[in-house]
Amino acid sequence: MQDKKLNVGLCGLGTVGTGVVEILQNHQEDIVHQVGCSIDVKRILVNDLSKPRGASVDPSLLTDQVDELVNDPDIDIIVEVMGGIEDTYHVLERAVQNGKHVVTANKDMMAVHGGKLMELAREKHCDIRYEASVAGGIPIIGSLTNGLASDRINKMMGIVNGTTNYILTKMVDEKRTFEDVLKEAQDLGFAEADPTSDVDGLDAARKISLLSTLAFKMQTVLDDVEVSGIRGISSEDLAYAAQLGYTMKLLGIASRENGKVEMSVQPTLVPNAHPLAGIKDEYNAVYVYGDAVGETMFYGPGAGKLPTATAVVSDLMDVVKNVRLGVTGESSVSPHYDKQMKTKDEIFSKFFVRLEGEDEAGTFLAITQEFANSGVSLDKILQMPVEGHDAADIILITHNASRFQMDAILHALEEIEAVRSIHSVYRVEGEGN
Amino acid sequence: MQDKKLNVGLCGLGTVGTGVVEILQNHQEDIVHQVGCSIDVKRILVNDLSKPRGASVDPSLLTDQVDELVNDPDIDIIVEVMGGIEDTYHVLERAVQNGKHVVTANKDMMAVHGGKLMELAREKHCDIRYEASVAGGIPIIGSLTNGLASDRINKMMGIVNGTTNYILTKMVDEKRTFEDVLKEAQDLGFAEADPTSDVDGLDAARKISLLSTLAFKMQTVLDDVEVSGIRGISSEDLAYAAQLGYTMKLLGIASRENGKVEMSVQPTLVPNAHPLAGIKDEYNAVYVYGDAVGETMFYGPGAGKLPTATAVVSDLMDVVKNVRLGVTGESSVSPHYDKQMKTKDEIFSKFFVRLEGEDEAGTFLAITQEFANSGVSLDKILQMPVEGHDAADIILITHNASRFQMDAILHALEEIEAVRSIHSVYRVEGEGN
Repeated sequence: MQDKKLNVGLCGLGTVGTGVVEILQNHQEDIVHQVGCSIDVKRILVNDLSKPRGASVDPSLLTDQVDELVNDPDIDIIVEVMGGIEDTYHVLERAVQNGKHVVTANKDMMAVHGGKLMELAREKHCDIRYEASVAGGIPIIGSLTNGLASDRINKMMGIVNGTTNYILTKMVDEKRTFEDVLKEAQDLGFAEADPTSDVDGLDAARKISLLSTLAFKMQTVLDDVEVSGIRGISSEDLAYAAQLGYTMKLLGIASRENGKVEMSVQPTLVPNAHPLAGIKDEYNAVYVYGDAVGETMFYGPGAGKLPTATAVVSDLMDVVKNVRLGVTGESSVSPHYDKQMKTKDEIFSKFFVRLEGEDEAGTFLAITQEFANSGVSLDKILQMPVEGHDAADIILITHNASRFQMDAILHALEEIEAVRSIHSVYRVEGEGN
Repeated sequence: MQDKKLNVGLCGLGTVGTGVVEILQNHQEDIVHQVGCSIDVKRILVNDLSKPRGASVDPSLLTDQVDELVNDPDIDIIVEVMGGIEDTYHVLERAVQNGKHVVTANKDMMAVHGGKLMELAREKHCDIRYEASVAGGIPIIGSLTNGLASDRINKMMGIVNGTTNYILTKMVDEKRTFEDVLKEAQDLGFAEADPTSDVDGLDAARKISLLSTLAFKMQTVLDDVEVSGIRGISSEDLAYAAQLGYTMKLLGIASRENGKVEMSVQPTLVPNAHPLAGIKDEYNAVYVYGDAVGETMFYGPGAGKLPTATAVVSDLMDVVKNVRLGVTGESSVSPHYDKQMKTKDEIFSKFFVRLEGEDEAGTFLAITQEFANSGVSLDKILQMPVEGHDAADIILITHNASRFQMDAILHALEEIEAVRSIHSVYRVEGEGN
């Protein structure tokens, strides 16, 4: 055991940083009992020294000089909650070079530089922890690396972006349009003025990449994730999905088969009875399929000051225990499989296809013929007249088909004269073939 | 680092024991990568040496002599999956005395002797792990002790018994009686021939006691849990609950306020939109309220060969890491608060009350007057004629009331002449006051 106090350098004093300070103060007694020493915030890096701060922060701790944290030999652990990618990575790289452990909530930086940073940390016997970077308050990283460590994880499906889940929930429950709910979410401060990263699925993709690296023990990067967002979802799609018993969610999906993986983020239909269908508003959930354990789900707040700060401080406590036990840098799971991606003929799922066809004899036969030609059978079929169009909306739910098969079918459908347009194609998950 | 192999003595080769052997074999490569050494099963304790075993088990490992495990200096870790309370405790006590670490799936033994065993283990610098004893495949203990370690847990509500959740799901979804579904579950092997421990809530109570000890860091025992099971639930209760928007679940509830705790297991109504309402069939889920994190839920299989074996092997891997790092006996959370139980006037919840009253003017007024007299207000009211009885079923959902207030009200209601009987009283959870 070392001395009875460990010092933290806190980078960033925004919402989450303030939450970290508060939890360390409010839960001090419990924390000391669990880790056997006190955890002191010795220095806090901020951008603007003149900005007024809450009562919980001692102003003498503040600095705008990063060297006062990364070069201070008394600081044992850097807690990074300031965001940013390149500059922040270089700060943390220097910190690890100087033998400091790192706890970060920064998924953007980790998705880009996580592999390098963790390799450096292993060399330097330092810990890197980043539970808070994925699904804020849900201890999903800990569950993958500890509780489910003995199992082989084959697939994960996650609602890992709160903003899009909020928007989809309101679109479904209140039958409102995407634009309408987005505007409300922006007015309420749930969605950014520039919502691109959320609604186009990039934020979710970063998290799925981080989870895949851990679960599959294979170093993946953001570019490996195929991404599409929720902008194109129409009220009609949602209504037809509901009629067939499905709910729309933006799911990050990662799966592994025979050593090959697939990662994607896209609007996906799940059966109403599936646990993911019931995840409402800004909540997150990660559904995990293990070889042995079967299906488990982890649910909770995906973001927010105190949920995220809880994850940061729990990570911090873990690092403190390791420091006191002298076992830092030992516990992280290193990616030991080579990355192999599935090709389009190896990625299977059910699909929802909605198209508009001429309301005449033979249209339906011609359409279903194309599915049969590609060897894809149909699970559910719904045909509804489109008012005033002399046409019909045709909705098909397929049985399992590869992405390759579906591309061929969609191409062939476009060639059919009686098919006026293919409105939408969604992946369907969470039920049998 | 120590030698490159650790030896396990496995006590019990039933369903879970066989699963442990299989996972160690099937996931060997991943396991070695994660813990840095191989884990060998050196000896297996069984009752009956002549019983035929599966192909995965080397018969030369079997013994019916417990000394060959607990006295073998080459065995580092005892994995106990044989069940039983007193005898098993003494086996494990001897093992720890001899410096062996213990991984157990035995909630019955842990609920009775867990406190003593963990104290002895701390003395001997041994690890005791028991993730598998609560909610099989869900890493809830790990989440409480690691991921949520920095938070103060104020309340947990758990569906922690698969048999009763299966029965309630079928009763609700298929509108069948308790007796009918129980018989089916017994025929299918889901329920024991003597279902007492499950349907009367004892199994759930043991788990809630273990979880409370961990979450509240306070040594609780089975007798601290107030228990009632699901035998008395009628189809009418379920139908009325559904009409008012609630689903019935057997919930283990543990809450803490101002250092005082309450633990109970009872049939409880939750709103249909609550995540716990959607937990179907034999699945388990634990809903956790943290001071900082807010609400999280952990969902998965509560039992079964491989889910339980996954938890056992994950615990085993954790112990192996600790042994190799030389830090065993350091990591367990010791209960450091004195036990203080809430009294009846400190336990608050909403209630569902169903009673049969004379179908005459003034009955309803007399009833509601008793609630008002005790200062309890009503949230929802439903009155339905009882066919052929010249009476009415009256269902009331209260706002928050203490157990003390409810007892007084129920006593007073019995005195009202127009009240023919009080059919049922259930706790209501998962919504505002």
